[in-house]
Amino acid sequence: MEELGKGIIEPEKQMKQDESGIRRVAAIVIEKVYPEINGGTFAAKCIAGDKFFVWADIFKDGHNIIRGSLRYRRKKSTAWKETPMRLLENDRWEGFFIPKENVRYLYTIEAWIDPLRSWIQDAKKKCLANLKLEDADLLEGLKWVKALEPKVKKRDKESLKKYFQQMELSQGAPEEILRIVEEPVFQKLVESYPVKQETTRYHRTLELIVDRKRAEFSAWYEFFPRSQGKRKQVSSTFKQCIQRLPDIKKMGFNVIYLPPIHPIGTTNRKGPNNTLTADKRSPGSPWAIGSFEGGHKSVHPDLGAIEDFENFVQAANDYGIEVAIDFAIQCSPDHPYVKQHPDWFYHLPDGSMRYAENPPKKYEDIYPIDFHCKDEIALWKELRSIILFWIEKGVKIFRVDNPHTKPLPFWEWLIDNVQTKFPEVLFLSEAFTRPKVMRYLAKAGFTQSYTYFTWRNSKWELQTYLEELTQSEMKEYFRPNFWANTPDILPRILQVGGKPAFKMRYVLAATLASNCGIYSGYEFCENVPLRENSEEYLNSEKYEIKVRDWNAPGNIKDFIARVNRIRSQNPALHHFKNIRFCHSHNDNILCYAKKTEDNSNIIVVVVNLDPFRVHEDTVSLPIWDFGLEHWQTYQVRDLLTGEKYYWKGSSNYVRLDPRNEPAHIFELRK
Amino acid sequence: MEELGKGIIEPEKQMKQDESGIRRVAAIVIEKVYPEINGGTFAAKCIAGDKFFVWADIFKDGHNIIRGSLRYRRKKSTAWKETPMRLLENDRWEGFFIPKENVRYLYTIEAWIDPLRSWIQDAKKKCLANLKLEDADLLEGLKWVKALEPKVKKRDKESLKKYFQQMELSQGAPEEILRIVEEPVFQKLVESYPVKQETTRYHRTLELIVDRKRAEFSAWYEFFPRSQGKRKQVSSTFKQCIQRLPDIKKMGFNVIYLPPIHPIGTTNRKGPNNTLTADKRSPGSPWAIGSFEGGHKSVHPDLGAIEDFENFVQAANDYGIEVAIDFAIQCSPDHPYVKQHPDWFYHLPDGSMRYAENPPKKYEDIYPIDFHCKDEIALWKELRSIILFWIEKGVKIFRVDNPHTKPLPFWEWLIDNVQTKFPEVLFLSEAFTRPKVMRYLAKAGFTQSYTYFTWRNSKWELQTYLEELTQSEMKEYFRPNFWANTPDILPRILQVGGKPAFKMRYVLAATLASNCGIYSGYEFCENVPLRENSEEYLNSEKYEIKVRDWNAPGNIKDFIARVNRIRSQNPALHHFKNIRFCHSHNDNILCYAKKTEDNSNIIVVVVNLDPFRVHEDTVSLPIWDFGLEHWQTYQVRDLLTGEKYYWKGSSNYVRLDPRNEPAHIFELRK
Repeated sequence: MEELGKGIIEPEKQMKQDESGIRRVAAIVIEKVYPEINGGTFAAKCIAGDKFFVWADIFKDGHNIIRGSLRYRRKKSTAWKETPMRLLENDRWEGFFIPKENVRYLYTIEAWIDPLRSWIQDAKKKCLANLKLEDADLLEGLKWVKALEPKVKKRDKESLKKYFQQMELSQGAPEEILRIVEEPVFQKLVESYPVKQETTRYHRTLELIVDRKRAEFSAWYEFFPRSQGKRKQVSSTFKQCIQRLPDIKKMGFNVIYLPPIHPIGTTNRKGPNNTLTADKRSPGSPWAIGSFEGGHKSVHPDLGAIEDFENFVQAANDYGIEVAIDFAIQCSPDHPYVKQHPDWFYHLPDGSMRYAENPPKKYEDIYPIDFHCKDEIALWKELRSIILFWIEKGVKIFRVDNPHTKPLPFWEWLIDNVQTKFPEVLFLSEAFTRPKVMRYLAKAGFTQSYTYFTWRNSKWELQTYLEELTQSEMKEYFRPNFWANTPDILPRILQVGGKPAFKMRYVLAATLASNCGIYSGYEFCENVPLRENSEEYLNSEKYEIKVRDWNAPGNIKDFIARVNRIRSQNPALHHFKNIRFCHSHNDNILCYAKKTEDNSNIIVVVVNLDPFRVHEDTVSLPIWDFGLEHWQTYQVRDLLTGEKYYWKGSSNYVRLDPRNEPAHIFELRK
Repeated sequence: MEELGKGIIEPEKQMKQDESGIRRVAAIVIEKVYPEINGGTFAAKCIAGDKFFVWADIFKDGHNIIRGSLRYRRKKSTAWKETPMRLLENDRWEGFFIPKENVRYLYTIEAWIDPLRSWIQDAKKKCLANLKLEDADLLEGLKWVKALEPKVKKRDKESLKKYFQQMELSQGAPEEILRIVEEPVFQKLVESYPVKQETTRYHRTLELIVDRKRAEFSAWYEFFPRSQGKRKQVSSTFKQCIQRLPDIKKMGFNVIYLPPIHPIGTTNRKGPNNTLTADKRSPGSPWAIGSFEGGHKSVHPDLGAIEDFENFVQAANDYGIEVAIDFAIQCSPDHPYVKQHPDWFYHLPDGSMRYAENPPKKYEDIYPIDFHCKDEIALWKELRSIILFWIEKGVKIFRVDNPHTKPLPFWEWLIDNVQTKFPEVLFLSEAFTRPKVMRYLAKAGFTQSYTYFTWRNSKWELQTYLEELTQSEMKEYFRPNFWANTPDILPRILQVGGKPAFKMRYVLAATLASNCGIYSGYEFCENVPLRENSEEYLNSEKYEIKVRDWNAPGNIKDFIARVNRIRSQNPALHHFKNIRFCHSHNDNILCYAKKTEDNSNIIVVVVNLDPFRVHEDTVSLPIWDFGLEHWQTYQVRDLLTGEKYYWKGSSNYVRLDPRNEPAHIFELRK
């Protein structure tokens, strides 16, 4: 009985029934909390130091004035902090806090009735109708002002006393009451020392993953460490990879992602262009992990020793570049696990081990893992130990291969488990599967996700896809990483569009999203497919060692470097949710703006999506959002070329010739 | 350990952690279940005998074929029934069941992997690529076909055996395997006897309130029982009310709603037009409930005895009309509760009892109840006993006065409690408050709700409001009742628009919604407001006894009767969610269609929203939805006038003169 309306109603008591069947439900309704992923099953995500906004519908029967606050704390702490929410309109409330640490946080909402404000509200209405407050009514008000007494700090005691006496003396005269309740000092007292009645807590405590900035802002460069040398068919080493770092640094990348670096199986090894018979010189696919030389915790001997890898990581870090490695859970038939733990794999009714397949395709060089085998706990722990092993070697980013073919609960467990100890570790999900599965992987904990960007080409496709990523609930948990190409995907636009297409697609990847990547070769506009209508590369590096001239003529290294420099220097491009598309008439002209909250950095990108033809258009900017009036002239400076234009009003002319630059990246200056 | 992947994973085990910290999460993801009101906190609503549809996203890692089923049962039963769901697209599944009884139901979802179907899917791909199945692969298929053996009914045993043998003999030859798996009889076996693996239940069991049809389809007529006589300033009796039934029946109403029928207090009784001083002949407001003659369980002596009320209810029922009474939780100062339970009321600091107010308005003739007083359990039970008392007297519908000023948890408790024993009882929520509070009342259990219809006049207002009611989640729990007027609300359109406005607004109320109502006087186009810019009636019946000539010239009783007859005779108008707006160019022409699922009844309503002027237009019907081709001629018959037109294609001409009829209600015949 006692808890109803008296003091804080703890959530667990809200739903209890007493013997009479009367349900003890919260006095104040708190619902439609956002973000709240899958009813609180999953965590939202944000970046340490950024504002994290929370909304909720908060209301109650009757006309009392209610107030709400957002409560939050580090998950490992016990002390809640509190920040007031504000009423937007129509019972919708908003609040935010700034989580400063790269750890997991919790947040929830509290609401209460403020009887003093409620009294003031009613008294004002009466006074404005020139009605004298009755004695009992005035006594009520005095009671609530008195209730502030034990709360107020010393410096406010005097003024509180003064107002109390003035109210007492007023005898309920409307003009006097009005004068008091409208005095700023009085209002400040009411604001600073809320009287709380029927305090209600939201019945869920929600989780927030607070990542470091690299989770949201990164530029990835993928290379095969064995292909960084100069001798045909000879694997390069991590030592040689270190020589490549200045070049990659110069292009402006801050993450290097390496396909699997482990020993490669020989049984059923794939030959060039994914043929079934490999000759002795075929190096095999790095994804056919494991040989007599070791498994997931070993380095391919051709690349060097573990120490060489550690040195490479250190050298990269010295350049401000992080190294991401691949986590591909599968084993070649020669992997030590196959002999040590045959029960971790699938078996056919005839007792043979089942290799991977995606009918009618067969992958005889790898065995998938049976995550639900009898020995699953030992298996899951061993898989976790692989991650922990590489963390110890200095790796903080894992690109996970095909996570959608492994149990979703496994990722949920693994990522939470690893990040609890190492919150700085990031996981990138390589999944190009059904949209709901991709989303679920992000909910399950992946820090970043591959996307469909690689296949989105038209203005309509790009715009609707970006709106889905940045304006739906997805933005709270799914961080897109836009890859312009990968070793598996040479999209058609790059096959046919030549250098203008490579430049255009990199501008899109780098400015539409705040995480982007290319696979090496992109800077040389490599564009020969395995065959017509294939997205595979001819002579794919997956099955061969490649030798490249890193300064081959016709490369776009300088262009990429410029884009990446622009990205680094403009905070508006460090976020992905702040995108706003601008109207243009021409279906080949895509225009969008990104800006910082305070308008100190405003970037407008205009891209010609057609790599073959010149296009011109007028584009319409939301200048009122930029703090500009329709009559004002402002400068837009193309950060790619340095050219300046003076624009006026919302609509202005653009012309893009793909033979020059396929895009403008304008900085708008008032 | 054992439960993972073996047999049914019960929801409560899904979230458990074992000692290694590995979370036991469902093998198959079931999310975005719809309807699921506030994460399952509240029940959805439907009508007994109607299809109840449920949707969910269901998916899993990997490529296995999964299946889903919708499980449901009466809440009081224990045996679940199951009906298969079907995949729509993109991992979205749909299922439905038909709850036949007017009780509460539960529903949830189950999903599983079908290993036989998964094998068939892969085998087909291999066979189509003309690959022979390997022995181990064939053995795998045979294993799953064998798994059907214990499941199949006797009549299917032979064919199962036949296919098993044929598969065995095939030696994996692709053409033979293809032939078998594509045979309809084989497919039927696979369909009828699913092999289930990793069966997963959705972790929530959701509730469904199954109401009787009157909850969705009703026409209400509100009258003051004291005003049904012929003598000025003399209350009529329930006996006299019985005389009024044929007239109301003829107009086609099936619910009569009576404002409070209880004794009325004399202390601070309100006089005519809500004046503060009542003379001796003032009958008082029926909402000032309670006097020395009794309270909420008594009948006003001027109306007769309880038995007279019971006779009135019986007489109405004989005409197919139900009687709804008002449940207004407040007391006049003379109510017996005030003396017996002074602690149930609010007190001011000076000890005086607090009357109701909505500052600066005062209602000195009533005291509100303090629902959270110390004696709250006894209070809540007493309030429930009022409902039970009137149920015993034959009342099955309660119109609840101002529910939004009483605690929301009270309604949740009361309605569930009453309907568990008396599921046929309906509650109408009279709340014109903030939208989220109105919605919450419906979630808390109210069967029907007053709406903002009374103030929605323009085409844009009506269309957007109806779309909100019928195309958002609201439709699953909020059943609108469209009142054209109430004793409190004489909307401006009726004050100025004359008879055409009264006709037009009734057509809208009766055909936009499937529950509608008028307050008596409407049929005589009574339209004099208390003063300019007031929505109150002059000489409001709330404070006076009215005498009317029930056949006064200029009435629209025949028109109302026609609309109500059309409504009864056309099943398309018995629902509210099936509305579809049709394009028209003229902002004064509103056009919408309603149809039965099987197209056997198609109604097209065209309304001239301007009561002053003739309007004409072409309206565009979605004829393809009606099963018509663009070249087909079809008949539309105006059910109001009997006139027939022959229309062709989507766009056709209409002209509406408010001096004749302000609307067409067309029946479309092919």
